[in-house]
Amino acid sequence: MPDISKRGANMPQSPIRKLVPFAEAAKKKGKTIYHLNIGQPDIPTPPSALEAVKNADLKVLAYSHSAGFESYRRKLVDYYKKYEVEIDYSNILISTGASEAILFGMNACLDPGDEIIVPEPFYANYNGFSQAGGVKVVPVTASIDTGFALPPIADFEKLITEKTKAILICNPSNPTGYLYSKEELLVLRDIVTKHDLYLFVDEVYREFLYDGKTYTSVLSLDGMDDNVVVFDSISKRYSACGARIGCVVSRNKAVMDTVLKFAQARLSPPTFAQILAEATTEVEQDYFKTVIEEYDQRRQLLVERLQKMDGVTCPRPGGAFYAFAELPIDDSERFSRWLLEEFDYNGASVMVAPGSGFYATKGLGKKEVRIAYVLNKDDLNKAMDCLENALKVYAETAMVKNEVIV
Amino acid sequence: MPDISKRGANMPQSPIRKLVPFAEAAKKKGKTIYHLNIGQPDIPTPPSALEAVKNADLKVLAYSHSAGFESYRRKLVDYYKKYEVEIDYSNILISTGASEAILFGMNACLDPGDEIIVPEPFYANYNGFSQAGGVKVVPVTASIDTGFALPPIADFEKLITEKTKAILICNPSNPTGYLYSKEELLVLRDIVTKHDLYLFVDEVYREFLYDGKTYTSVLSLDGMDDNVVVFDSISKRYSACGARIGCVVSRNKAVMDTVLKFAQARLSPPTFAQILAEATTEVEQDYFKTVIEEYDQRRQLLVERLQKMDGVTCPRPGGAFYAFAELPIDDSERFSRWLLEEFDYNGASVMVAPGSGFYATKGLGKKEVRIAYVLNKDDLNKAMDCLENALKVYAETAMVKNEVIV
Repeated sequence: MPDISKRGANMPQSPIRKLVPFAEAAKKKGKTIYHLNIGQPDIPTPPSALEAVKNADLKVLAYSHSAGFESYRRKLVDYYKKYEVEIDYSNILISTGASEAILFGMNACLDPGDEIIVPEPFYANYNGFSQAGGVKVVPVTASIDTGFALPPIADFEKLITEKTKAILICNPSNPTGYLYSKEELLVLRDIVTKHDLYLFVDEVYREFLYDGKTYTSVLSLDGMDDNVVVFDSISKRYSACGARIGCVVSRNKAVMDTVLKFAQARLSPPTFAQILAEATTEVEQDYFKTVIEEYDQRRQLLVERLQKMDGVTCPRPGGAFYAFAELPIDDSERFSRWLLEEFDYNGASVMVAPGSGFYATKGLGKKEVRIAYVLNKDDLNKAMDCLENALKVYAETAMVKNEVIV
Repeated sequence: MPDISKRGANMPQSPIRKLVPFAEAAKKKGKTIYHLNIGQPDIPTPPSALEAVKNADLKVLAYSHSAGFESYRRKLVDYYKKYEVEIDYSNILISTGASEAILFGMNACLDPGDEIIVPEPFYANYNGFSQAGGVKVVPVTASIDTGFALPPIADFEKLITEKTKAILICNPSNPTGYLYSKEELLVLRDIVTKHDLYLFVDEVYREFLYDGKTYTSVLSLDGMDDNVVVFDSISKRYSACGARIGCVVSRNKAVMDTVLKFAQARLSPPTFAQILAEATTEVEQDYFKTVIEEYDQRRQLLVERLQKMDGVTCPRPGGAFYAFAELPIDDSERFSRWLLEEFDYNGASVMVAPGSGFYATKGLGKKEVRIAYVLNKDDLNKAMDCLENALKVYAETAMVKNEVIV
């Protein structure tokens, strides 16, 4: 029997999805599971966008251009203007989700063995894409004490080697909810221009801001046009995760020409989803107002509940729809599995994403979990009842304490 | 300005798509262009499948399972039974087109530097996927004199090294239309089991057979369950290229587990397209009868016209919807561009895919072109009028003859 590849063997299992079998088993036993583990919003997709797909009069479902519908790319130019970003449609290539955008960006800019610096905790699939492409993730650790702000410039400088080709951030951050300020982005500009690096920014949560904050897209900043590559997606913005439509945006022509070659090899992004995506550009700004208000209420409820629990630390997220909390536990992976297998509160339990999966540094995140506030307030409250109770039961019955864990 | 990656720089441009700008320029000048360069059928997508998308009552367009809809995978089990293939739904993972299926297969089974043997001429994007994954394509040359049959076993044996991990074929073949016989597949079985290699088979044209031939899927043959990985797609089968739905099929559990990890990193295949794909499993067999008859008539028309032209050699394709012909020309890339830029016949010209792009061996395919018979017979006849005329004009006015070309 032939061996599988080393890169396949080393490919990390998704920390968000690997507990799924335990959740499925729990549900089969009749337990209610509140899913706070995955960023799948319950918010309705804009009906007008779904309607556009129903109304499409296709006889032949044909390939589209490898870079996506030109009409959609031109409408995105207007969308970006709202964020003071002036670009041409040729600076945009439509991808199959932000996932493919990241893959294209990695492939176009980094070779196997090259290094990419990523503040941790970070979106776990960055590990997967790097592993698939043979790229080495070099973590720079952000601290819960600063709410996961950008680590000091000296921490980056220490990590830069001849192999370093890029820095990657997610703004606002999945998994921490941290919103990088303009000042922090300018610090990054100094680093990438000084060391001639790419600055990859995953901006898929751009609309999800709270406490009256405004968004600075890295594309709106001068002086690093050739360094900046942005990954974007409609998945969260329009609650359209299943569409699989995103894009790569860069003013660096060599990068876009190279990305196009990778895009040509896979022929085209999905046609139905592009019809939906193009229709989302007509969705009124009111849609976001309602959505953001809803998320803001959930965020406040979640953070308030968490901060009241004994031994829990949870910085207030400034954006996205995640909170990254430290819990009074021994091991978040063990705890998360225990929640599904052993625990219930009135017939229900909660599924969270273990923190360790979001770190590249071994041993970090063992007391932390990511919580996605993608459930309505009533369910979120019930989920917090479960968690609050679970922490007590776990401490009394299941937690490994004062032991040397080998 | 940071450099792009070496793999990006070396990524081949699609030979099928790189002449597109010249075609666009010709059309802007009012020239009619008959597109025989790309496998985009003009056949209607089954209306019932398109209807299924219109009728889908979605409120939230959510992620699906990373392996695709379980309901669809289970229906595919029945589909494969028609080809005497007995598998479980867990042997199938839904991908975003066969493109992604190939990428997953390569990543799961081959590391950078590993070698894959591919009979040439081959589907040009195999080069792209290999280049993206750092895999080396080792060509074994098939001859137009045998109609592009499987090269002798000795030719394969000569090429096998310690780095060889897989053999890849497309059956029936894009670009040659050659249909591998059961005997040839058994020869391949001997090679892959003897040398412990993977046998990758791209079976996306499985339905497109002529002259009363029947199909042998490599999945129906005993004795190589752990070696075989099949790539499939609904793009051609149901004229649904824009859906972007395919699958990976293998009985090798380690391969499927690894493919799933790559699939998890990109979250899920597109949801609308899966709804369409699942509905195609209910399409009646009559659909194919009509479609295959139509293609068969086109095939006969095309081959007859080509074989009547002076100096043209065109083996009769047994499957798919391509013919690979040798023309009396100096350089197929130069000729193809000349057709678009310089030539017209009654205000029209024809676009073909230069043969050289389908070979990995430098210098081969210079007199060959791939012709996709994806146009109706009337247009196909007009396209052949253009080509016939063009060959004469080219020979008289533009061809480089008896010169040493540096």
